[in-house]
Amino acid sequence: MKILVDGFGGDNSPDEVIKGCRLAADEYGVNIALVGNKQKLEEAAGKLGVSLSGITIIHADGFITMEDSPRDVLKKKADSSMAVGLKALADGQGDAFVSAGNTGALVMGTNFIVRSIEGVKRMALAPILPSEKGCFMLLDGGANLECRPDMLLQFGLMGSIYMNKILHLDAPRVGLVNVGTEPTKGTQLQHDTYELLQKADCNFIGNIECRDLPLGVCDVAVADGFTGNVILKLTEGVGLTFVNNLKALLTRNLLSKLAALAVKPGLLEFKKKIDYTEYGGAPLMGASRPVIKAHGSSNAKAFKNAVRQAIAFVSEGVVDTIKDSMQAYVG
Amino acid sequence: MKILVDGFGGDNSPDEVIKGCRLAADEYGVNIALVGNKQKLEEAAGKLGVSLSGITIIHADGFITMEDSPRDVLKKKADSSMAVGLKALADGQGDAFVSAGNTGALVMGTNFIVRSIEGVKRMALAPILPSEKGCFMLLDGGANLECRPDMLLQFGLMGSIYMNKILHLDAPRVGLVNVGTEPTKGTQLQHDTYELLQKADCNFIGNIECRDLPLGVCDVAVADGFTGNVILKLTEGVGLTFVNNLKALLTRNLLSKLAALAVKPGLLEFKKKIDYTEYGGAPLMGASRPVIKAHGSSNAKAFKNAVRQAIAFVSEGVVDTIKDSMQAYVG
Repeated sequence: MKILVDGFGGDNSPDEVIKGCRLAADEYGVNIALVGNKQKLEEAAGKLGVSLSGITIIHADGFITMEDSPRDVLKKKADSSMAVGLKALADGQGDAFVSAGNTGALVMGTNFIVRSIEGVKRMALAPILPSEKGCFMLLDGGANLECRPDMLLQFGLMGSIYMNKILHLDAPRVGLVNVGTEPTKGTQLQHDTYELLQKADCNFIGNIECRDLPLGVCDVAVADGFTGNVILKLTEGVGLTFVNNLKALLTRNLLSKLAALAVKPGLLEFKKKIDYTEYGGAPLMGASRPVIKAHGSSNAKAFKNAVRQAIAFVSEGVVDTIKDSMQAYVG
Repeated sequence: MKILVDGFGGDNSPDEVIKGCRLAADEYGVNIALVGNKQKLEEAAGKLGVSLSGITIIHADGFITMEDSPRDVLKKKADSSMAVGLKALADGQGDAFVSAGNTGALVMGTNFIVRSIEGVKRMALAPILPSEKGCFMLLDGGANLECRPDMLLQFGLMGSIYMNKILHLDAPRVGLVNVGTEPTKGTQLQHDTYELLQKADCNFIGNIECRDLPLGVCDVAVADGFTGNVILKLTEGVGLTFVNNLKALLTRNLLSKLAALAVKPGLLEFKKKIDYTEYGGAPLMGASRPVIKAHGSSNAKAFKNAVRQAIAFVSEGVVDTIKDSMQAYVG
């Protein structure tokens, strides 16, 4: 198995990417191909004192920035590490691709270079968010701002497969994000999706309210990409302000610093619980080969975990299971 | 001035409503009319040992439950405290109405009994949420799940008037909730609303991402009611899980309990900062007379603050200012 990793994606590239790949290669014994400018990658590794032994490099001249338009990945920046990595994945030079780069470009590139599984209406960006009971997968996190009911149905099915295969849940609870739990709530999109999910081959638990999402009311949360993106970013924002307030609270004077020491074990547990890097990145569910979007601010540990997630994605045969499940929608 | 208060709305009615009205009558010297079953209200006040002197009662036989359909307020439950209160408001028996009851019924009842200001396309439920910089008003919090650009434009204008009149901000920053800050982001709804808000007579700061909402990036956040409801409930849910984790952290053993004592002043400040009861309730912006939706789980203090908010709404002439602003849309 070989995992392709975008060397020039994310705020901390290429340094944290290189360090993360080293950790993953050592810990999981997996073959890794770093994609990006060979000279720059070797220089950076040299400066960091990180050995690249056992890690190959697939050369790509340029890279995509956060300011580039998503479609640049297809033509104008076809020589970027992201475009070259996606092509290498499509060509079978690797089994999965991990990138922390421009999300729009990664979705666009995966759509046109890697392509979706036959029968999949649209791929979904599927971040994994922490909850009181562990974590849940959110589809769509923002790849498709406007969705039809048949797309949302497939998002529910694909999320269910992921949570079953990768997180080993027997019957992942699939919930439809809505403004109330009653089946009559929401707009036509929610009404129609509710009906489809009710008949579908998954453990649909009905509508869910966002108040209950962080409590762990479901394992798969289904929403259109606009709503999903709001959920993703607001969860991050509210979490961040709480963490900042907690930090301020525990460092304001000597007494509170002593208090911080006293609660340190609990703090570390809590920090781990809400640490997005624990769960890896956001897979592009529905892609014909595994593509994982790592968080833009990923550090070495986050990259390592995204590689671990990519390995599981491949070894558990998630793509093939989705392929089988999508047979009903082919042709 | 007389404030009408629904005696039988919310999880803690009528006891906390009665206590809240007593506090408000004493603190603000305002006339209050409690709406609801006279015998039950007097019995409850007696049991609580709360005097009703200076508080009148407008009798209503029944009350709306959370399970009632919104339209019940119009016919089947026309004798409910909510329906009777709204009629009293429409008839000029009071200057504002506060209720913590069924939100859907309150919106429906306000629409058909109190009616909207001429020129207002749709009323918006406008909760006030805490942020790092104080608070912001969210319109629409869920009254209109699907919105047109002209509705969102008016939501921005009405929210701006509220934040100016009630919270005394000179030029409230109006932001459009979107999946990115660039003007090209979002769906047709966001594109068209962006154009309208840019030309409008308010301090439009452009698109905002939900990650920045809790940081206080704007004073007025404009969104369709589905998105707004997601924001409202998710903010509550994420906040709740953090508070629960913080509580667990600070009470797990003797050492952590001592630590809690050490950080108590900071904890209380933080609690106050995120306490929704501080800001009162969610006004129904665009109603021809002030209607305030108090939180369903309001306690006496929350009711008192909702009454204070209603007083300010009346004395600052918010309805008249909106009327003037909506002249452009009349006829």
